[in-house]
Amino acid sequence: MQGQMMNQPLLISSLLVHAERHHGNQEIVSRRTEGDIHRYSYRDLAERARRMANALERLGVGFAQRVGTLAWNGYRHLELYYGASGAGVVLHTLNPRLHPDQLVWIADDAEDQVMFFDLTFLPLIEATASRFRTVRHFVLMADRAAMPKDSAIPGLICYEDLLEQASDDYDWPMFDENTASSLCYTSGTTGNPKGVLYSHRSTILHAYGSALPDSCGLSARDVVLPVVPMFHVNAWGTPYAALMVGAKLVFPGPALDGKSLYDLFEAEGVTFSAGVPTVWQGLLAHVEENGLQFSSMNRTVIGGSACPPAMIEAFEGKYGVQVLHGWGMTEMSPLGTVCALKPGQDRLSEDAQMRIKRKQGRAIFGVDMKIVDAEGAELPWDGETSGELLVRGPWILQSYFNRADTPLIDDRAGLGWFPTGDVATIDADGFMQITDRTKDVIKSGGEWISSIDLENIAMGHPAVAMAACIAAHHPKWDERPLLLVMPKPGKSVTRDEILACFDGRVPRWWLPDDVVFVDSIPLGATGKMQKNKLRETFRGYRLPTI
Amino acid sequence: MQGQMMNQPLLISSLLVHAERHHGNQEIVSRRTEGDIHRYSYRDLAERARRMANALERLGVGFAQRVGTLAWNGYRHLELYYGASGAGVVLHTLNPRLHPDQLVWIADDAEDQVMFFDLTFLPLIEATASRFRTVRHFVLMADRAAMPKDSAIPGLICYEDLLEQASDDYDWPMFDENTASSLCYTSGTTGNPKGVLYSHRSTILHAYGSALPDSCGLSARDVVLPVVPMFHVNAWGTPYAALMVGAKLVFPGPALDGKSLYDLFEAEGVTFSAGVPTVWQGLLAHVEENGLQFSSMNRTVIGGSACPPAMIEAFEGKYGVQVLHGWGMTEMSPLGTVCALKPGQDRLSEDAQMRIKRKQGRAIFGVDMKIVDAEGAELPWDGETSGELLVRGPWILQSYFNRADTPLIDDRAGLGWFPTGDVATIDADGFMQITDRTKDVIKSGGEWISSIDLENIAMGHPAVAMAACIAAHHPKWDERPLLLVMPKPGKSVTRDEILACFDGRVPRWWLPDDVVFVDSIPLGATGKMQKNKLRETFRGYRLPTI
Repeated sequence: MQGQMMNQPLLISSLLVHAERHHGNQEIVSRRTEGDIHRYSYRDLAERARRMANALERLGVGFAQRVGTLAWNGYRHLELYYGASGAGVVLHTLNPRLHPDQLVWIADDAEDQVMFFDLTFLPLIEATASRFRTVRHFVLMADRAAMPKDSAIPGLICYEDLLEQASDDYDWPMFDENTASSLCYTSGTTGNPKGVLYSHRSTILHAYGSALPDSCGLSARDVVLPVVPMFHVNAWGTPYAALMVGAKLVFPGPALDGKSLYDLFEAEGVTFSAGVPTVWQGLLAHVEENGLQFSSMNRTVIGGSACPPAMIEAFEGKYGVQVLHGWGMTEMSPLGTVCALKPGQDRLSEDAQMRIKRKQGRAIFGVDMKIVDAEGAELPWDGETSGELLVRGPWILQSYFNRADTPLIDDRAGLGWFPTGDVATIDADGFMQITDRTKDVIKSGGEWISSIDLENIAMGHPAVAMAACIAAHHPKWDERPLLLVMPKPGKSVTRDEILACFDGRVPRWWLPDDVVFVDSIPLGATGKMQKNKLRETFRGYRLPTI
Repeated sequence: MQGQMMNQPLLISSLLVHAERHHGNQEIVSRRTEGDIHRYSYRDLAERARRMANALERLGVGFAQRVGTLAWNGYRHLELYYGASGAGVVLHTLNPRLHPDQLVWIADDAEDQVMFFDLTFLPLIEATASRFRTVRHFVLMADRAAMPKDSAIPGLICYEDLLEQASDDYDWPMFDENTASSLCYTSGTTGNPKGVLYSHRSTILHAYGSALPDSCGLSARDVVLPVVPMFHVNAWGTPYAALMVGAKLVFPGPALDGKSLYDLFEAEGVTFSAGVPTVWQGLLAHVEENGLQFSSMNRTVIGGSACPPAMIEAFEGKYGVQVLHGWGMTEMSPLGTVCALKPGQDRLSEDAQMRIKRKQGRAIFGVDMKIVDAEGAELPWDGETSGELLVRGPWILQSYFNRADTPLIDDRAGLGWFPTGDVATIDADGFMQITDRTKDVIKSGGEWISSIDLENIAMGHPAVAMAACIAAHHPKWDERPLLLVMPKPGKSVTRDEILACFDGRVPRWWLPDDVVFVDSIPLGATGKMQKNKLRETFRGYRLPTI
């Protein structure tokens, strides 16, 4: 028997309609690529998004076709978020930091029909325009005055002209909520990038989950500044959650340095922000150097990679800004966990609280997680045992774009779980902590050793610039840790001094079997150590037998 | 093109699974009908709900069949919420305050297979058991020790026996999220009661919406005590929202007097509650008389009927408890609006804030609303113009139980809206205020006059005990207000004195055309004036011609 409630699909356009009707005067403030500050209301956004929907139709973009964006966080990008997805077109946000070859490959794979791009990326598009296989129109997201006189791009369209020529009379279509809404590629360390194709349903459910008090806790009185880019998993969903609750939105454009961010935070009364640790490093440095304080910001989500405890301490202790340590993945829309305290934990000692806050947190309703051993058996939640982290939920990937095969692993009940590739512990209260990546963890005699833990300890030595720990083959234990150490310039350190660092800080059987000093450790485009290259270099390395 | 995210239905069982896995140690505290305090954990709840699912199967209750409950707020009732709905059985909560004839009629209409009831209602069931057409089993929700030695109820089952004999090994089934989950009857003033059949989907979406910061704002650190009964629109969804966020739940059982409630609030550290104004009246009286304060409660939702401004002032001014004025209906799961301030409004003067807080508030995302005139045309949001309130959204009724016809009114785009029967204004910020019921409002020359406004003004006169305003036929204006006044015992007041009350407080054309003094005004079971009876009595009343 079916319930007898309204059959109303969860559509992205309904966020815009709600924001226009119930929060029409709320502000959206953007630092533009042109340099100035732009401000308008949700009502204006809705009008221009309707124009965009009509404009896309005029450009010949059909239902479910993809349009690409290469853009910073700003109001025009937001108009595409709603104008494209609302009309049933799939918004494909590209990461401009990728290599041009990869960008072209991704746009081709997605079969993007139109490419929208910010002024910043004009040279990039001029250099690559002829190589895109499916892109029929290029649109520069700028005022007419900023348009180049001569451009190598054939038929280059001015975004403002495009909107001006389109009518703002448009009725958002109703369709199945499982329809694709947006596309974001994730670049693994091996193979080609893979697309994650979100649906209207997954996007709306994620917005509900992310706005809850124990997630981002968003209300109409919040002023939300997403530092995390709109080309990076939809700025963690903030452009959707903000409209859901009617919060003011502030976009930083391309100016992500500490001073520019701080000035915008203060000028616009930002209360909530979200970003990766490296961006906050720059912001904190600026605030510290100039003896400043935050007058309105009261909390921020930090994720993307583990937040250094010193950063949590600085934000909370010195500046009164609550840090919400979070974890997610492109395949998860992205939010999976947020580290919001449980009852009673806020009365623990500072040290005990900090031990909790270092963890990535607990699951939002909509996400379930478990840790499993190599055979897929669920491991205990004791805060000690580590295993591969698997997740499932309505905003988590089933299969990659254009691929029929699924990475999911079925449990005994036939339910599919997405293997995150992360290794983690979960404690009795459900707080999860990432300890490693599955491909980096060292499997010694069936037990796991965290490469990250060993690296962090080695990097605590004053003479060490960088350290990487990889698995080396061992005849008896299968794998044993091999520690690669890059000393600081002009400093020297011995094998025994390094090994002494581990005394009493890890189980004895975790001790690296060997330490090798190297001149350099290869880093990827995002600043992460390329352990796969190191593993290749040290393939066949023979550990000393003791 | 479909998105490629996990196809995972929104099911009530997933709330229980989430609560057990991620908040297993969280407490549920109940004052029992037996009189004592009972406490256990979400883990215990999950185990006993699984037993209940098995027990229902043993009792021969099939998928989609209905089971009835006549019970207070308590842990056993909660076990039925999850054990029944989770298994695909429809939970039908009956209001024990109804007349026995009506109860029997409702259970028959729903075709309830089993009737679960609290000790309080043993006499009621003993008197009516033989009259239920479809009920095959009666289960008394009590310990074995509390079971009656002799009972007129054939085959009376003890709840605890039933659970004990069932296994706790049960896998929650997966099914379509639009499957019916629960049933609640609403008793209109005319005709038979009508059932509202909620779905798993509508229940989960409502829980997300109601837990948002601008709704109830629920977190794992909250201690939630629903005073509103679990037989009254699922206690406004709190039993679902609490498990979604992992909050502690406290159930008051049958003890709803001020002292019992206050003691429980304090003993269990309640932070959040929800109920109708009359219950708070009792609680406030107890607190005031004894010079008490609330040590943990920080906010409460008040709805069901308009919250008197004096109550808002008392809670917020004297006791530091934030009042969230809300509005909803059985047909709306029930939450529609909550009066959470918009940015800047918290800096207004106290008077200006109070003018906002008297309103029922703004729409939660998931609910859209509009006011329309007699022709269905949308009216402006100016805070002045009043019209019939229409709503739509995924947790709002499409049609009543077992009825194919729908009360919905289609707009030009073909979207259906539910006519609430309320008359309201909406201001430019989206804050809605109920001004009347459509059947009570006085339609004078095509314009509307609020009967409630006129009554409130008349009742402000010190000699007036009660006043009712109804429409009387008028040859030119169609309807004009007729004011019926019941003076306080021993007091007297004249027509002109009453009419003088309205000077400068309403437009001149709102002035009642006549005042009639009466000895009594009929009241219904819930204390509301029965205007339909008054209209009947004064049908054909001839207004004086001036």
